[in-house]
Amino acid sequence: MPDAAVQTSLIEKLERSRIAARALATLAADRKNAALEAIAGAILEGADRIFAANALDLANGRENSLSSGLLDRLSLDARRLHGLADAVRQVAALVDPVGEVVRGKVLPNGLKLTQIRVPFGVVGVIYEARPNVTIDIAALALKSGNAVVLRGGSAAENTNRVLVELIREALESAGLPADAVQTIDEFGRQGATELMQARGYVDVLIPRGSAGLIDTVVQESKVPVIETGAGVVHMFLDASADDAMAIDLAVNAKTQRVSVCNTLETLLVHADAADRLLPPVLSGLRAKGVTIHADDRTAKIFPDSVPATDEDWAAEYLDHDLAVRVVDDLDGALEHIRRWSTSHTESIVTADLANAERFLAEVDSAVVMVNASTRFTDGGEFGFGAEVGISTQKLHARGPMGLSELTSSKWTVRGTGQVRG
Amino acid sequence: MPDAAVQTSLIEKLERSRIAARALATLAADRKNAALEAIAGAILEGADRIFAANALDLANGRENSLSSGLLDRLSLDARRLHGLADAVRQVAALVDPVGEVVRGKVLPNGLKLTQIRVPFGVVGVIYEARPNVTIDIAALALKSGNAVVLRGGSAAENTNRVLVELIREALESAGLPADAVQTIDEFGRQGATELMQARGYVDVLIPRGSAGLIDTVVQESKVPVIETGAGVVHMFLDASADDAMAIDLAVNAKTQRVSVCNTLETLLVHADAADRLLPPVLSGLRAKGVTIHADDRTAKIFPDSVPATDEDWAAEYLDHDLAVRVVDDLDGALEHIRRWSTSHTESIVTADLANAERFLAEVDSAVVMVNASTRFTDGGEFGFGAEVGISTQKLHARGPMGLSELTSSKWTVRGTGQVRG
Repeated sequence: MPDAAVQTSLIEKLERSRIAARALATLAADRKNAALEAIAGAILEGADRIFAANALDLANGRENSLSSGLLDRLSLDARRLHGLADAVRQVAALVDPVGEVVRGKVLPNGLKLTQIRVPFGVVGVIYEARPNVTIDIAALALKSGNAVVLRGGSAAENTNRVLVELIREALESAGLPADAVQTIDEFGRQGATELMQARGYVDVLIPRGSAGLIDTVVQESKVPVIETGAGVVHMFLDASADDAMAIDLAVNAKTQRVSVCNTLETLLVHADAADRLLPPVLSGLRAKGVTIHADDRTAKIFPDSVPATDEDWAAEYLDHDLAVRVVDDLDGALEHIRRWSTSHTESIVTADLANAERFLAEVDSAVVMVNASTRFTDGGEFGFGAEVGISTQKLHARGPMGLSELTSSKWTVRGTGQVRG
Repeated sequence: MPDAAVQTSLIEKLERSRIAARALATLAADRKNAALEAIAGAILEGADRIFAANALDLANGRENSLSSGLLDRLSLDARRLHGLADAVRQVAALVDPVGEVVRGKVLPNGLKLTQIRVPFGVVGVIYEARPNVTIDIAALALKSGNAVVLRGGSAAENTNRVLVELIREALESAGLPADAVQTIDEFGRQGATELMQARGYVDVLIPRGSAGLIDTVVQESKVPVIETGAGVVHMFLDASADDAMAIDLAVNAKTQRVSVCNTLETLLVHADAADRLLPPVLSGLRAKGVTIHADDRTAKIFPDSVPATDEDWAAEYLDHDLAVRVVDDLDGALEHIRRWSTSHTESIVTADLANAERFLAEVDSAVVMVNASTRFTDGGEFGFGAEVGISTQKLHARGPMGLSELTSSKWTVRGTGQVRG
């Protein structure tokens, strides 16, 4: 399709999203929950259609030599399908954020002010080849009263098309506008490009996927973006850190799940505790198969390591690798974090109150921890019940995002004829 | 200066802002308030320097044939200078938003979660030839713990340079880093362009001024922007509107101050009440010198008018002009507002409960009112104590922005060694 035609067709779709968003905005939670139940049912009942489409994507993927990791993320089986349906039901069980009163007061002149949560309107999502994102985001958007426009990765094109068809059928069966969930995958890359230009049609754009994808959207989008970002996550073992706690926290933060953004990537150790802590902590990590990328001072204490360079301090490995550095003191740790952190999550392990408070106050990250595993930076763990992503930007939302982060607000003012003097 | 040199010098300045921001972020309110007092004092004591610089700008302005309106906004006298100093003292009297607890809870595993307000860090502001913005924004940024980088209009260049010098001297005298407030006016237009590209150096950019300026910043900035926008503000006189209230509210909303974004620009009237309401309401407005731009149905009832076109429905006059249209019913009013509103402020005048609630629910604007003058959409009127601007975007802040809208948030997590299972 020529670019101008894509643009016209896309805008026409986005106008339909806007109309659907208007209907969703004032819908009672009961109605939205019924639609979510219908979607969960449709996913299970549509299993054969989904598997057939998924087999096509997998065959294409193998032909295009996708990595086994990507093929695994792409593939759906009965167990995963049940997981998707369950996730939709869990979203139905969450509290509806729409209408929640944020603040309110009565002005001296009698005007009654109330700030309430309202849906954004039309939310755009650009993501990669993970069909579960299609379902998750559609459910979260619907629950928060937003229409959603999806642009998934081409590798999951067939699966996503069927999933969106099933969702739209379920929406209609529940009496909701099908256009509450639309895909623009048919427009290919040009669709994503146009979506990023569609200021006024799309209220917010959320990129989900690799750092490269997120960076492209952040750089190119004229629509406001919520950046869900990379995590070069640090833990600092202070001089007073308890041995057992240091081992437990470092091993858990690094190895409990290596492929996610809240996994530990750089361990900093106070020089006064390096001899005491590094051997047991790093042995524990080596026993779990972690490669230690060590600075000179660490390597002297723990030779079973490879040398670290600046690339290691900047690395989000998302693998069984850890950069380790000995720092002179808390200030050295703070300086290293300022220089290299992506401001996602940092944790200090300490028994010292003043150092704990300084770390909490001075580290400028979305989540700052004392004596806790960085793996807890997560919407589910925080009790938000659903994973929209983890914002590493400072505008609108910061840290794990729940349903309320998918809303804007509106002031209502109720008067009895007040005029301004 | 060649572009590359501007870029290097600007980045070097922004790095100094970052260092200053770090010091500001953890500063107690007392220290910030003392600095604000010092700034208020410096403005008054520096009157001679300010007036000399201002005279230079005014002379240049006359030479460049600036309009009398612009010259008036640009000019400072003793009364205005006292006003500026008072405004700074008023900001000092506001509650410090930094550290305010937004939410908090204890997780089942004992982790203590607290979401607190923190400064953005470095705030950039691009504005036009109003020296008062220099002072207002510097005070608001300082109070909320942010370093600020100012790019003012070239017409106020000399005045702003002296104001920033005085602020920086006052900051140093109060023991705060002078770089908490910097101007990049010396780099001219190229400085503004580079500022919009300085993602990672500037946390948020706020344009203040004309629709054209705001639009340019929104379109070109790679830094997250808070859009303070135009107001094509509507009032709908419902069939049940009280005569006296309709007259009071329409006249107040249109004429109390015509040059501001919350002033009324389009009046919609229910067809059933047009014969009753239009003559007294429009006569009241004509008596205040307002030109009525009328649709056909209005013109038949009130001939003392000029014909309205689509340009009138889209107009933010900011003058003694008002577009007036008769609509069939509430749905007609909602449809007109959806089509033409800039989503700033809309008000319904009605005695009907169901219509009031529908208007509040269905109008998708930052502020939606029942039986109140649109002139109340204002940070001062809302009790925020200071005017950062009125956001017409949906991300981060919507409607009047107070000090807390100049902050981000951060999660702190306090544990005792918790690991994720």
